[in-house]
Amino acid sequence: MKLECRQATIEDLPDIVRMLADDFLGKQRERLEDPLPESYLKAFRELDADPNNELIVAVMSVPPTEAGVTLSEPKTKNQKPKTESIVGTLQLTVTPSLSYQGSKRSSVESVRVDDKFRGQGIGRQMMLWAIERAKKKGCVSMHLTSHGDRKDAHRFYENLGFAASHVGMKLVLK
Amino acid sequence: MKLECRQATIEDLPDIVRMLADDFLGKQRERLEDPLPESYLKAFRELDADPNNELIVAVMSVPPTEAGVTLSEPKTKNQKPKTESIVGTLQLTVTPSLSYQGSKRSSVESVRVDDKFRGQGIGRQMMLWAIERAKKKGCVSMHLTSHGDRKDAHRFYENLGFAASHVGMKLVLK
Repeated sequence: MKLECRQATIEDLPDIVRMLADDFLGKQRERLEDPLPESYLKAFRELDADPNNELIVAVMSVPPTEAGVTLSEPKTKNQKPKTESIVGTLQLTVTPSLSYQGSKRSSVESVRVDDKFRGQGIGRQMMLWAIERAKKKGCVSMHLTSHGDRKDAHRFYENLGFAASHVGMKLVLK
Repeated sequence: MKLECRQATIEDLPDIVRMLADDFLGKQRERLEDPLPESYLKAFRELDADPNNELIVAVMSVPPTEAGVTLSEPKTKNQKPKTESIVGTLQLTVTPSLSYQGSKRSSVESVRVDDKFRGQGIGRQMMLWAIERAKKKGCVSMHLTSHGDRKDAHRFYENLGFAASHVGMKLVLK
């Protein structure tokens, strides 16, 4: 099985929202419906049009012989077995900034790995990909905030070299 | 004396960099030179061109009769006394996002008040202005990270209603 990261397309949106909703905080926040509420499509289009924001998906490909067994069964005889699955997502934001002598900074948010594919290093591969991407875009640092309750996530990011040097503060506006 | 917040122009840049540099962390990071290093001008132009990023300054105006006494003396007889001074700055970023059903979030960074004008509520007025601005732009939340050592800053933000609910993590990329 092979993992690739790429920019999300609008076809990936249901998979992404499914992962955002499948989370102890996210399940109170999201609406995973078919069709998806229009607000997700509107947000996707805004994100997609902004050169400083990228919605990333991690895609797992399986050889045709394995497909349908590990990922999904074809629904009809004419339908080909599914040979790729969206197994992770994150949003990468590049922020132009005056500080550090006019350096760009980057941040990641909404980092999720499909529950069924955890423990295989997918999150780590996806983050390493995002770090390389941010470097290529000229960023000198990567920032993120993680809810104080997400203890596992803090260890995950520390293992990637992140330092928990800051306090992350939030104000709800509505 | 009257305080106004507005978007920064390139003429405000030396004042902004002076405030970024006048800080126990900033003084190791910035280069306050005349003329300013080109990297600041380049970053300003990028920021200025990005509709999702705004560099804000707080400007203090004084009546002409007081000007020159409280703010600065005219350097020549023909020069009018300075009637406004840049006394604060912050950067406001709006981030389109899929989470919270496709809601925009906002963040502030590089929040500074001129050392000579502290203790007059300028930071609070500037932040309240930024919060209103973020609401007008349709953001549902405002986020910031503050270095763990900035204890006074944490109290300042908590007094504005921010909750220190998150861990802020940072990875240096170069």
